[in-house]
Amino acid sequence: MDIQTSKICRLGIDLGGTNTVLGIVDAQGSILAKKKMPTTGHPSLESYIDKLAETYFAMLRGLPEDIKVIGAGVGAPCANQTTGCIEGATNLPWKGTIPLASLLSKATGIPVSISNDANAAAAGERMFGAARGIDNFIMLTLGTGVGGGIVCDGHLLSGSRGFAAELGHVTLGEGFDRDCPCGRKGCLQMYAQAGGVVQTALEMLDSSPDDSVLRQIKPEMLTPLEITLAARNGDKIAKETYRLTGEVLGKGVANFLAITDPDAIILFGGVSKAGDLLIGPMRESMERNALFLYKNRIRILVSQLPDADAAILGAAALVS
Amino acid sequence: MDIQTSKICRLGIDLGGTNTVLGIVDAQGSILAKKKMPTTGHPSLESYIDKLAETYFAMLRGLPEDIKVIGAGVGAPCANQTTGCIEGATNLPWKGTIPLASLLSKATGIPVSISNDANAAAAGERMFGAARGIDNFIMLTLGTGVGGGIVCDGHLLSGSRGFAAELGHVTLGEGFDRDCPCGRKGCLQMYAQAGGVVQTALEMLDSSPDDSVLRQIKPEMLTPLEITLAARNGDKIAKETYRLTGEVLGKGVANFLAITDPDAIILFGGVSKAGDLLIGPMRESMERNALFLYKNRIRILVSQLPDADAAILGAAALVS
Repeated sequence: MDIQTSKICRLGIDLGGTNTVLGIVDAQGSILAKKKMPTTGHPSLESYIDKLAETYFAMLRGLPEDIKVIGAGVGAPCANQTTGCIEGATNLPWKGTIPLASLLSKATGIPVSISNDANAAAAGERMFGAARGIDNFIMLTLGTGVGGGIVCDGHLLSGSRGFAAELGHVTLGEGFDRDCPCGRKGCLQMYAQAGGVVQTALEMLDSSPDDSVLRQIKPEMLTPLEITLAARNGDKIAKETYRLTGEVLGKGVANFLAITDPDAIILFGGVSKAGDLLIGPMRESMERNALFLYKNRIRILVSQLPDADAAILGAAALVS
Repeated sequence: MDIQTSKICRLGIDLGGTNTVLGIVDAQGSILAKKKMPTTGHPSLESYIDKLAETYFAMLRGLPEDIKVIGAGVGAPCANQTTGCIEGATNLPWKGTIPLASLLSKATGIPVSISNDANAAAAGERMFGAARGIDNFIMLTLGTGVGGGIVCDGHLLSGSRGFAAELGHVTLGEGFDRDCPCGRKGCLQMYAQAGGVVQTALEMLDSSPDDSVLRQIKPEMLTPLEITLAARNGDKIAKETYRLTGEVLGKGVANFLAITDPDAIILFGGVSKAGDLLIGPMRESMERNALFLYKNRIRILVSQLPDADAAILGAAALVS
């Protein structure tokens, strides 16, 4: 079928430690078909790839004939977009370097691009979400860890080995002493990831005599969502938790501005659900700490992609 | 004349506050012709542009006929490569926004690209110098101020308004309290620019009882060169000055690695002449402060372009 008369689609694959989700996405960002399969339990990498291709072809058969899938994108841990390989992922069943892009391309007959989740998120926002039409922006995924993706001059930065935009591991300097699993101290993610926000709340509960509804929640059950709900109900410690998180995030981001001169910062993930509780103080801190060149022109936006589909849409958007 | 049989050249223009230097550069980086003219003293911007074009045509007439100039690059203060305009330069005779690229292109008949000096330096190293064949690197010009240029995935980053890579204005956080003319505290340039190195030396002379040949030099006459010479002769305070400078520079650069995943850092300018006195401690500090992903793989190189011609070569290299 002629490509001009067909409906251009992309295959998005969200490769997680437990499940792999596939979605066929049209040019408007609608998911026409979606399937889930386990990532684990396959006798070999080859049989996993075969199963992936088989699932894709079955999905395709269920769609109208005028669908033309122009390529596949995979969002996966430790995925190197420069080489097309997954390198040393600790939460996947296969060890070492996996040439995922070439294996999957051979099995499906379509070009395959891969990248880590945060880069895929940036691509997804650009094609389908809050960053449509924005050529210069920085994506921050605030969840379990903090991931980053940078689009500069219309190009998603990859770097020499695909490790560009590890923004969660930018260190904040003296006075930021939380230990990061990477072995260093003061990485941004230790303050802006879900667990970092919870730690800030717990530290404040510990040091403050103020009453707080958060005291009724067992520390190990506390999440950014409870803190957000408490803050919206006027809880002082909950509000102060997001104020401090925004303060730190704004300080970190102010330095990023001087590196790629973006128009917008786009937030995704559980912590970003706090909305203005976080973004207000973050903006204030970013403006206060930024070089004059960048003041009063950087928008802070929250992802416009639905949580459940963001990973699929981001992966699909890796196909250019 | 057919472009295939002609000798491809580029016009490089170094636009400074006092003088403008033009050079016609061949593909190997040899300067075939070079002329200097004053930047000031012209009745209008238009007459300056006319004089520039006239000078270029005169240079061209003196060269063999098979020279084909494919474009001009201009390195200038406050030059925005995205818009082709000079915007608010305080040390040039013309105020406001100057559409330099379009004016000069009209006057010369060739395409014109402009950028700031540090970006031009990065382009120059990539085409003719230490960064040949390197698609991911960060340029730092350590002179009067610290400038930056970033090449990521083979592309010189410009950013939304051409203000990418203002690396001298990345702040170092608590404990770095020197006042920067930008109005903030702790900008990297306050420690790594020529005046920053001198300030570090003066502070050490002040607080240390140690003997030093630097005490024989009037503070206002002290430059990085004297400190380098003293350090090479074993002067303890001079060596310690570069050790501290390298320590700070390495710490700052360690965070840059997580943003664009480069293969090399390239240093240019007076402070870089200290060579291993600076680079040894800088490398040690960068490795100590870097995320594990980047350890033991980033080269620190010194510019390979001759000082006197670097600005011309860099400007010429802006023509792709």
